[in-house]
Amino acid sequence: MSYHLLKGKKGIIFGALNEQSIAWQVAERAVEEGAEIVLTNMAVSIRMGTIDKLAEKCHAPVIPADATSVSDLENLFDRTMEHFGGRIDFILHSIGSSPNVRKGRTYDDLNYDFFQKTLDISAVSFHKMIQVARKKDALNEWGSIVALSYIAAQRTLYGYNDMADAKALLESIARSFGYIYGREKKIRINTVSQSPTPTTAGSGVFGFDGLMDFAERMSPLGNATAADCADFVITLFSDLTKKVTMQNLYHDGGFSSMGMSRNAMAVYNKSLELEYQDVQHK
Amino acid sequence: MSYHLLKGKKGIIFGALNEQSIAWQVAERAVEEGAEIVLTNMAVSIRMGTIDKLAEKCHAPVIPADATSVSDLENLFDRTMEHFGGRIDFILHSIGSSPNVRKGRTYDDLNYDFFQKTLDISAVSFHKMIQVARKKDALNEWGSIVALSYIAAQRTLYGYNDMADAKALLESIARSFGYIYGREKKIRINTVSQSPTPTTAGSGVFGFDGLMDFAERMSPLGNATAADCADFVITLFSDLTKKVTMQNLYHDGGFSSMGMSRNAMAVYNKSLELEYQDVQHK
Amino acid sequence: MSYHLLKGKKGIIFGALNEQSIAWQVAERAVEEGAEIVLTNMAVSIRMGTIDKLAEKCHAPVIPADATSVSDLENLFDRTMEHFGGRIDFILHSIGSSPNVRKGRTYDDLNYDFFQKTLDISAVSFHKMIQVARKKDALNEWGSIVALSYIAAQRTLYGYNDMADAKALLESIARSFGYIYGREKKIRINTVSQSPTPTTAGSGVFGFDGLMDFAERMSPLGNATAADCADFVITLFSDLTKKVTMQNLYHDGGFSSMGMSRNAMAVYNKSLELEYQDVQHK
Amino acid sequence: MSYHLLKGKKGIIFGALNEQSIAWQVAERAVEEGAEIVLTNMAVSIRMGTIDKLAEKCHAPVIPADATSVSDLENLFDRTMEHFGGRIDFILHSIGSSPNVRKGRTYDDLNYDFFQKTLDISAVSFHKMIQVARKKDALNEWGSIVALSYIAAQRTLYGYNDMADAKALLESIARSFGYIYGREKKIRINTVSQSPTPTTAGSGVFGFDGLMDFAERMSPLGNATAADCADFVITLFSDLTKKVTMQNLYHDGGFSSMGMSRNAMAVYNKSLELEYQDVQHK
Repeated sequence: MSYHLLKGKKGIIFGALNEQSIAWQVAERAVEEGAEIVLTNMAVSIRMGTIDKLAEKCHAPVIPADATSVSDLENLFDRTMEHFGGRIDFILHSIGSSPNVRKGRTYDDLNYDFFQKTLDISAVSFHKMIQVARKKDALNEWGSIVALSYIAAQRTLYGYNDMADAKALLESIARSFGYIYGREKKIRINTVSQSPTPTTAGSGVFGFDGLMDFAERMSPLGNATAADCADFVITLFSDLTKKVTMQNLYHDGGFSSMGMSRNAMAVYNKSLELEYQDVQHK
Repeated sequence: MSYHLLKGKKGIIFGALNEQSIAWQVAERAVEEGAEIVLTNMAVSIRMGTIDKLAEKCHAPVIPADATSVSDLENLFDRTMEHFGGRIDFILHSIGSSPNVRKGRTYDDLNYDFFQKTLDISAVSFHKMIQVARKKDALNEWGSIVALSYIAAQRTLYGYNDMADAKALLESIARSFGYIYGREKKIRINTVSQSPTPTTAGSGVFGFDGLMDFAERMSPLGNATAADCADFVITLFSDLTKKVTMQNLYHDGGFSSMGMSRNAMAVYNKSLELEYQDVQHK
Repeated sequence: MSYHLLKGKKGIIFGALNEQSIAWQVAERAVEEGAEIVLTNMAVSIRMGTIDKLAEKCHAPVIPADATSVSDLENLFDRTMEHFGGRIDFILHSIGSSPNVRKGRTYDDLNYDFFQKTLDISAVSFHKMIQVARKKDALNEWGSIVALSYIAAQRTLYGYNDMADAKALLESIARSFGYIYGREKKIRINTVSQSPTPTTAGSGVFGFDGLMDFAERMSPLGNATAADCADFVITLFSDLTKKVTMQNLYHDGGFSSMGMSRNAMAVYNKSLELEYQDVQHK
Repeated sequence: MSYHLLKGKKGIIFGALNEQSIAWQVAERAVEEGAEIVLTNMAVSIRMGTIDKLAEKCHAPVIPADATSVSDLENLFDRTMEHFGGRIDFILHSIGSSPNVRKGRTYDDLNYDFFQKTLDISAVSFHKMIQVARKKDALNEWGSIVALSYIAAQRTLYGYNDMADAKALLESIARSFGYIYGREKKIRINTVSQSPTPTTAGSGVFGFDGLMDFAERMSPLGNATAADCADFVITLFSDLTKKVTMQNLYHDGGFSSMGMSRNAMAVYNKSLELEYQDVQHK
């Protein structure tokens, strides 16, 4: 199904590892909608994942880049503009990683070199790619930049650790640079705060399954999937959302506006009842 | 330009008075995108405005209804389903009016009958139309309901008076009913918080011109127009935003995320400088 | 324990029914802190509850007033100023009731006369008391007005019904009037968004016990009690918070900033595990 | 004037440079309210400023510490607990600096080493001091930790540069650690979002005077001063706010809830009118 919403548009997609990746789904949908794209990821992620399959499907070159490296990003934008013979129209940032989470350091025992890396990979990389893009004047007017975020930026979730802080920083960068790039070249910058999604990165978070279930039952429309997210991101890259900028947009089936649903409460109460029964039997 | 985003979809548009109306622009765009629509407004607004011109252009019937009257709404939904031979997919609520504003009653001197009318017309009407729609099972699964709001719901603006409270109530109704209608029939309900727009309703607000200019210079992308808004609302009616619900979405060129822009500050400072000069010359 | 934080201050407390009432606790603490107060409530609530006991303890007159009646409010402020021989310094609004909830009308089957009453009792009454106070110039400069709210104003909770919309309206009125009364007489107006509290009113909400337990385990500091709330409200009436206005202040042990806690997840997961066991045993 | 609100309490105040500093005012007020304190700052700030005068007035030792250095912080907490012969009850973090701002690097031309330093000094230092405090079990149950923030964390202000991102990160750290330290030892952690304040740090921001004037006229109660802020922070250190945690509390005369005030609009419009006159005269 295609609406040709991105006909004639060109873009860069960061962070497609495998089919579970949101970035993968966005890449496929963007091409379906008529866009031409360049794929990029860290060299190690390219080796680990299956991005070549996606590249083939999307007729897209894969240009390796470490998004924390300004020189890698400079090379990426140079080669991308060379490839397209001109400027691009959209960028997706779907990058996040916490060495503290990976190494099992809890939030009250952070390693500060790791913390800095979490921030650099998951948030400052967003600033770097925008700053490099702007210095190279790589985006057409009314271009659109999107980064993927999570509600942990506003509300603390057990186990999400320093990634919560990274997401808060990421969303702030979207606002700060959204102002500057907007007034200058009408480029809009937004973040999409997505439901918990069973990607390779997402699943690594402690207690992910229970959280997925809770979010599913709290959200009146259920959790948004990676494919749902791709659809939504397409609208943000299209010409129909030109005046939306500096926003964090919840794409989560309603979770962010829920205090308590009947369905989630039912599960919770069932456990409480059993507890009371246990107490009475003693 | 059409993407056929709403091909096969049917909907009701409340509140098109004349070409300046956001509802008018949405109606036109919806039809361009392949939708069939029914237009509705109060009898008095139908007489005052030029909705018949729109109806002709959109091949749409006009069914009068006072959105504060449950029986009018019942009749509207009955006749609309009759007209389409079945259920609808989207609704736009673009209705607001404050007798206190019209009669020059300031916020510290409200007439409480007027206040109740402001709330009834501008907010409770939204609940009424959704409740009637739901009781008649008038919407298809994954339908989409949108109401137009304004940032006055979050931040006080001089002169906006009790309409601010009505917008806060409107946004709350979107959340409250969004939960219920979502869990039951996957209907999503959102509000769009639009830039100040020079519609017949908007222009009536005290000091509107200065505010428009301020918002224009504060917003990195400038104010969103009624036509911009129509484009955005189309995405919310489309199948690409199925998991967005219970949200208030700022469509305002970035205004809502700005504290102070260089451009707005320049105007402000110029006035300050003149004041200082006046003082020095004395 | 007294700090004499309200020494020499005078105020009106709306909504003390019995010892469980937050307003009751605020009244006691205000007097402990050196304030003189007037108590008020609807005639029917005065009969139903035990306010006379509080009045005696606080050496306070009880002046009946229906907070939805402007003339009752006028009489209340006249008699209060007469009693004190002058202006007052603070007001507490702790009033809320939903005929729809009481009569078992769900949110998708609201009676609109009841809905209007919900809004009038729980929100518009706040505007009325402020407008009357202002017209009678009943407050000293730097006075403080507080209303009690609940997070349902921002996030939908199963069963809270149209009270959620009333709280959103209440918080908007605090902002709207806070601007006007602030610029004019330095009066500040805020709402306190309190943990679910087992008052007579609170306990009536459907599924209240489960929700209390969930909120308790979600909040790192546990639910705030009515006594905790009274302490906090005292700070808002004191001279130490003169520049806080137009705010909704969460007093909830951290609940509002939580996405998921370890403790709440543990209860939830226990129920999930049992469900999986059930499935396996079949 | 003292209420003895902090009688018997002990705390550490970070960031008092000179009398203009908010930290200075908090230190004085804390001591007036019965607290004993330890003052700390970077060695260079101790030399540049006049903290010794404050130390004398407050009968407080000055223990130098670079808040980005874990070992300095360890030494600080060790010596503080030695000094008091036990645990402390409150901490104020009033630290922020951007090498990018100081060196004139605009937000679209950030030096990334500087950016990392901005984050480290202004935000990560907050995590470091809490983590060190927790590891040393330096705080009594129901202790209170406060950091000073600014609305730039939510809304972009021209010229505030990467400090906006640092404040967003700071507020996130308050939430993330607030959960952990709260559930464990009932310690509460909040940020205070203060009006623009003419401190040595604040005044350095580009265009500060115009912004101060704008904020003053937008805020119904005017800008909150450093002395006002000290009063408010005292309430947060006191036992009256035990259940407030993980919050960002606006202490700004109402600015954060304003969209446009009559007073600010008047200044703005005056400038617009002159512009129109200029156009007509040509």
